[in-house]
Amino acid sequence: MEPFALDERLARDSSLVIKLGLCELRLIEDRRWPWLVLVPQRPGISEVFELTPLDQAVLTFEQNLVASGLKTLTHATKINVAAIGNVVRQLHVHVIARFEGDPNWPGPVWGHGAAEAYTDDERRAFYTTPTPPYDLGDLWVQGAGGDLMRCTTAKTAGGSYASGDWTKAVK
Amino acid sequence: MEPFALDERLARDSSLVIKLGLCELRLIEDRRWPWLVLVPQRPGISEVFELTPLDQAVLTFEQNLVASGLKTLTHATKINVAAIGNVVRQLHVHVIARFEGDPNWPGPVWGHGAAEAYTDDERRAFYTTPTPPYDLGDLWVQGAGGDLMRCTTAKTAGGSYASGDWTKAVK
Repeated sequence: MEPFALDERLARDSSLVIKLGLCELRLIEDRRWPWLVLVPQRPGISEVFELTPLDQAVLTFEQNLVASGLKTLTHATKINVAAIGNVVRQLHVHVIARFEGDPNWPGPVWGHGAAEAYTDDERRAFYTTPTPPYDLGDLWVQGAGGDLMRCTTAKTAGGSYASGDWTKAVK
Repeated sequence: MEPFALDERLARDSSLVIKLGLCELRLIEDRRWPWLVLVPQRPGISEVFELTPLDQAVLTFEQNLVASGLKTLTHATKINVAAIGNVVRQLHVHVIARFEGDPNWPGPVWGHGAAEAYTDDERRAFYTTPTPPYDLGDLWVQGAGGDLMRCTTAKTAGGSYASGDWTKAVK
């Protein structure tokens, strides 16, 4: 069987946050909504029911972990979870934080207008021990063995990292 | 805890097909797309991750059973599965058969134009042994203990039911 390769359009439209047991967790490059996708690292799959039963169970677990984490982080009104794939056939599950009054609320995000890129400041996420500047709400992805952390005390450039500036983002 | 009661808007916009172990399986009254919803019969739940782990697993199972069955029945290009709930907060999972060129393809179905009601002829589904007339593709829901059957030989009014006119719709 061919190895897993990420679909080119998914690669272009999103950036890797972390690899979980089954899925790549990716951030969609559209600042209008906090919008993640989970891509099971399995080749040739376009429907959830084509996964093995074990993979289906793991996907459910990772999906709910991410949806619950996103709710905790963003205090969203509603989390939207969807496997659509009418354009990109490689199986990918959207997990999106929605707020009353956000673009196209309460309609869906797909096919609504044009994506707006993040600026570097907005998309601040650390993959190693953070060095200032960092702001409230910045994320620190400690990796497969660690926690997802959220900044609770901002530091300006030139300041020093302190572990107390960060707290677990997901229980 | 209060007992489960179906949301009024879901009740108005859809009709019951069958009750599964966890969910009510309902048909959305919109002939533009073959569109089912699964509603877990649990009170006060609006996100999948609020279900117990066991209910999450059962929902995954029922969701994939229905999605796979719908694909087999309709030969859809793509099945769309989504828990959105921005309007109706009671947790419900959409399972929709999509075809190239269908209304709003490849965009989403939600929020697109106005629903078109089924005519009685189109929505022929039997819940007891079918009596003619029945047409190719009609469904026969045998109930919790039985199979979902699909008509493979049409009979006009006045004809007699024959078991050979029906085949299992889902393997």
